[in-house]
Amino acid sequence: MIIVLKPEVTDSQLKHLVSKIKSLGLKPMISKGIERTIIGVIGEEDILRSTPLDVFPGVEKVMSILAPYKLVSREFKHENSVVHIGKVKLGGKKIVMMAGPCSIESREMLISIARSVKRAGASVLRGGAFKPRTSPYSFQGLGEEGLKYLKEAGQKTGLPVITEIMDIRDIPLVEKYADILQIGARNMQNFNLLKEVGMSKKPVLLKRGISSTIVELLMSAEYILSNGNFNVILCERGIRTFEDQTRFTLDLSAVPVLKKLTHLPVVIDPSHAVGKWGYVPSMAKAAIASGCDGLIVEVHPKPEEAFSDGAQSLVPDNFEKMMRELKAVSKAVGRDI
Amino acid sequence: MIIVLKPEVTDSQLKHLVSKIKSLGLKPMISKGIERTIIGVIGEEDILRSTPLDVFPGVEKVMSILAPYKLVSREFKHENSVVHIGKVKLGGKKIVMMAGPCSIESREMLISIARSVKRAGASVLRGGAFKPRTSPYSFQGLGEEGLKYLKEAGQKTGLPVITEIMDIRDIPLVEKYADILQIGARNMQNFNLLKEVGMSKKPVLLKRGISSTIVELLMSAEYILSNGNFNVILCERGIRTFEDQTRFTLDLSAVPVLKKLTHLPVVIDPSHAVGKWGYVPSMAKAAIASGCDGLIVEVHPKPEEAFSDGAQSLVPDNFEKMMRELKAVSKAVGRDI
Amino acid sequence: MIIVLKPEVTDSQLKHLVSKIKSLGLKPMISKGIERTIIGVIGEEDILRSTPLDVFPGVEKVMSILAPYKLVSREFKHENSVVHIGKVKLGGKKIVMMAGPCSIESREMLISIARSVKRAGASVLRGGAFKPRTSPYSFQGLGEEGLKYLKEAGQKTGLPVITEIMDIRDIPLVEKYADILQIGARNMQNFNLLKEVGMSKKPVLLKRGISSTIVELLMSAEYILSNGNFNVILCERGIRTFEDQTRFTLDLSAVPVLKKLTHLPVVIDPSHAVGKWGYVPSMAKAAIASGCDGLIVEVHPKPEEAFSDGAQSLVPDNFEKMMRELKAVSKAVGRDI
Amino acid sequence: MIIVLKPEVTDSQLKHLVSKIKSLGLKPMISKGIERTIIGVIGEEDILRSTPLDVFPGVEKVMSILAPYKLVSREFKHENSVVHIGKVKLGGKKIVMMAGPCSIESREMLISIARSVKRAGASVLRGGAFKPRTSPYSFQGLGEEGLKYLKEAGQKTGLPVITEIMDIRDIPLVEKYADILQIGARNMQNFNLLKEVGMSKKPVLLKRGISSTIVELLMSAEYILSNGNFNVILCERGIRTFEDQTRFTLDLSAVPVLKKLTHLPVVIDPSHAVGKWGYVPSMAKAAIASGCDGLIVEVHPKPEEAFSDGAQSLVPDNFEKMMRELKAVSKAVGRDI
Repeated sequence: MIIVLKPEVTDSQLKHLVSKIKSLGLKPMISKGIERTIIGVIGEEDILRSTPLDVFPGVEKVMSILAPYKLVSREFKHENSVVHIGKVKLGGKKIVMMAGPCSIESREMLISIARSVKRAGASVLRGGAFKPRTSPYSFQGLGEEGLKYLKEAGQKTGLPVITEIMDIRDIPLVEKYADILQIGARNMQNFNLLKEVGMSKKPVLLKRGISSTIVELLMSAEYILSNGNFNVILCERGIRTFEDQTRFTLDLSAVPVLKKLTHLPVVIDPSHAVGKWGYVPSMAKAAIASGCDGLIVEVHPKPEEAFSDGAQSLVPDNFEKMMRELKAVSKAVGRDI
Repeated sequence: MIIVLKPEVTDSQLKHLVSKIKSLGLKPMISKGIERTIIGVIGEEDILRSTPLDVFPGVEKVMSILAPYKLVSREFKHENSVVHIGKVKLGGKKIVMMAGPCSIESREMLISIARSVKRAGASVLRGGAFKPRTSPYSFQGLGEEGLKYLKEAGQKTGLPVITEIMDIRDIPLVEKYADILQIGARNMQNFNLLKEVGMSKKPVLLKRGISSTIVELLMSAEYILSNGNFNVILCERGIRTFEDQTRFTLDLSAVPVLKKLTHLPVVIDPSHAVGKWGYVPSMAKAAIASGCDGLIVEVHPKPEEAFSDGAQSLVPDNFEKMMRELKAVSKAVGRDI
Repeated sequence: MIIVLKPEVTDSQLKHLVSKIKSLGLKPMISKGIERTIIGVIGEEDILRSTPLDVFPGVEKVMSILAPYKLVSREFKHENSVVHIGKVKLGGKKIVMMAGPCSIESREMLISIARSVKRAGASVLRGGAFKPRTSPYSFQGLGEEGLKYLKEAGQKTGLPVITEIMDIRDIPLVEKYADILQIGARNMQNFNLLKEVGMSKKPVLLKRGISSTIVELLMSAEYILSNGNFNVILCERGIRTFEDQTRFTLDLSAVPVLKKLTHLPVVIDPSHAVGKWGYVPSMAKAAIASGCDGLIVEVHPKPEEAFSDGAQSLVPDNFEKMMRELKAVSKAVGRDI
Repeated sequence: MIIVLKPEVTDSQLKHLVSKIKSLGLKPMISKGIERTIIGVIGEEDILRSTPLDVFPGVEKVMSILAPYKLVSREFKHENSVVHIGKVKLGGKKIVMMAGPCSIESREMLISIARSVKRAGASVLRGGAFKPRTSPYSFQGLGEEGLKYLKEAGQKTGLPVITEIMDIRDIPLVEKYADILQIGARNMQNFNLLKEVGMSKKPVLLKRGISSTIVELLMSAEYILSNGNFNVILCERGIRTFEDQTRFTLDLSAVPVLKKLTHLPVVIDPSHAVGKWGYVPSMAKAAIASGCDGLIVEVHPKPEEAFSDGAQSLVPDNFEKMMRELKAVSKAVGRDI
């Protein structure tokens, strides 16, 4: 950590600060420059991070040198992590396609979608049983009934299933039915929920909050790993900006940035990001070209009758067509799908 | 709701859409313009809101006419709501000052702060026992022990107390000790938590998410009111923007906007918004001038030793000085403090 | 245009509004719904756009039906526009690669870069002679001397050249040397400059402002087309968000959105968007996969000695390696490069 | 400047870097910590700023210690600058009120507004003769005719006048008629225009770009001061965020931040920020309470017939009412108006 002092800092302020640093068991190194004096502090940066040195009189600013995350970092583990979901491996050469409806609406519908996405090449079935909805008056999901349909559809097709968990109290229930626990964007900083899924043995897909930085996403993943669960998949699903032609702005640069900073696999959700099905295939292709490890997309046989997010769902025919295009792009970047 | 059709819409697409609208029990009214045909739909707008009409072939866009919130709206209740917290009334002529440390760190420290903020004119004591921290390695709060100190400090000074609740499982505990339940910015869309505090009898202070729109804040409040709890206080605490001189950007325009749209009282948190104590008094004065009903600020006797957010905390002397300035501004806008 | 009235609108307010609409030569159509009365207005929407109807008493809001741009729209021209730059065609099957240094620094350096990017497959040479710099103390470009080097390097390699124009007074000068006039992000709404290049016969590459919406970009292009110059190329180069791991956030969804709304070709600048050369190849591949018509990237033989933006420049070897990867991706999406 | 090295940095990389630093005439100081080696560089930070050290092999990141602006900084000049506009002093105890229509529409209208704002207490008349408009089809201003009306209205009322300048070519013209040259938000980084008004003797009001940071605003002001014109007034007028209930988000925290960083006076434009006249008085009061030195607001006798931005203009009666409220708030914070 580097502490930059104000030009008008007094000797007694400098002494006060230095003695504080020493009292924390750290070693201060002072360099007097032409315009500023700076103190480099050697030792555990975490001790400093929790000490608000910037309020000391005479301090202009405090700058961190080390990243605040550890277990998720490339420094901690150099090679890419591969998350195993039954027989599916996420994080290897093969790009994993997760597809299905936003909400689970009925048993028949779900089984039918599962069959068509499987046929087109998906390896994981998605479907929401508990839905976070902005309005209390919107459809909130089928709950356990939905989970049962999801498990059944998964078994009938041989696809592992992923579903969102919103509430700590539902963990045992969701664990019983799902192969991957999804933490939605709104819960990315629901730290107690993160701790609890950190104690689960199921893989966790963690979505980036709509206004969370990449570092905050990594810090939230750190909550899960530090509780013992290393099977974490990161998911970029669009951030909030001023642009209103799309529902959110898909931040695809997050892919190479995450690949540099962390060993965890990265999945892209183009459907929620753009919010209109017509833009999904372009962004799915771009995501693969950028280097992601998987995609999660919404497919619905009759989007005009969907209980939620119909506008962003592909019909099965379009999904199949998109899968053919994704195959070509995957191959071009040295991947399979 | 207004449905704008594409210029190339066909008659059969138009018929399909019209029959769908009628099947929902609504009345479509078609107007053919020079460049576009539009359909006005008369009836319950909520029925339409949950039907993704924008995916129908031939539809260009769908535009809402009514706001999606009801119970929180000025249309539902014209006069300002006043929330009663013991003898304190929030939403009336008197501006309510809530003050205290970010985290509760010890019994003695809390009682001492409580006494000094009370002396300076605060009417509510704040203090965190459960802390949402970006890093799993940061101090997470004293839990129930902290709540006990908070209640004791409140009783000793006669100040009602407010504290954050992060976990549904803690509601009974927090209800036992606190006079106001605070929902933090990260949990503004933790809908299950909102439903649960909606069933509580305690007043709720709901903080705006750092990237939530004002309408989304109102929708989250609607979750609480629609579950029976009308004692809701809205709180603006800064939104995330590109500006990095302050921790967040305090959106003070939210005050007149909220005052127009809702009957609920509005409180401003300048401390978290700016992130540096030196800017707090300016923004506190501005908040009162803009028309808010209360403030919630951080006060700490030794910010340089605070366990969290020391940089944004005022020392008691500065708080007292600020209170004197706030009195003058309150009076200038026809309020007391 | 649709005008939504307040629930408490009076008859005289309604009459006042209706007579105003008629006085503008337009036809109002009134529909009384259960909760609101709305007026649909038939006729030239532009007349209404410049009349602030939302300040009339009794008006709740005014909603546009038509897009405000015309000549740039797909409705105006269905097929893709192809911009001819000498023998290079931008907007067709072949993806056009523009490459070169951020600033022109010396004659030799520029000719050497021109040769290496040509060899690797670039079809246009870029280089800045007038540099918009945040600081008055930074290198501001070589001016006309730089332009001469640029033209010479172009002639020696047979590559057409592109350079930024910042000042109306420089148009004759830049036109003399450059094949494409570039309008930088900071000048996207320098409307007088847009009008002037609209009267030029040279193609114009118009960069999106860092906080401009896609519609505003189209409106700025409309300035150029409406002054007679239809050879406009749109360029996305990153928008400003809260994320700080990259210099800006590259909004690749702008590609399919622009392809839907306009006939103009779309180019992506990954270098300025990400700000670090290590992320450029991923985003360049993603850009092509998303459907863009060209790329503009920074290449510098010794980035550590560059006068500007060295951190985002590829060395020639990396550029060549990237070009090989881009070839594969282009082919996968049915394009050449 | 501080250079943080990668954990895997080699000795030869370190040597290479150190010799580069020395070759620039600077003094490197190396400290080896437990996890990272860092180099503190002593000497002219500007030399480093223009050298992309972050692309050197082995470098993880480079951190600045000093702010990049000089002449505008509080360090350069401790006491507040006061800008003289005729007899009006901006930056002293008296808050300066600038008011008038967005666009100058006719001689009579302007004189009538000038008289009413003067009567209500304004000290400067505003009015646009050259209008930056998003659409090429919108009213673009009356040009010189408008400037003549402005000067006449100013003379008739004794009010100095301010008007926007968009084009370098118009400087001699605008200087002839206006007392303050306004640089609009869209031109905040039109660096050539900044240089030119830097050579003018007239005071300049510089508006912050809608997505410019406070530091960028200061850097743009530095362009003007470094060209010799120290009479610069900074103006915050709203930044672009995701919130859509207001046209922009007024960043009032910019007031205390600017007051800390610079000696230049600060003016707030609440009208453009909120975009709806109903919210203007609240934000005007808040601005004064936050510590600004002046306000610039739009007043129009018939907003429903304004040629531009009618929705955000106050009618004279409301302006007068607001002025009375502002007087009370000014007094409460120890200022006059």
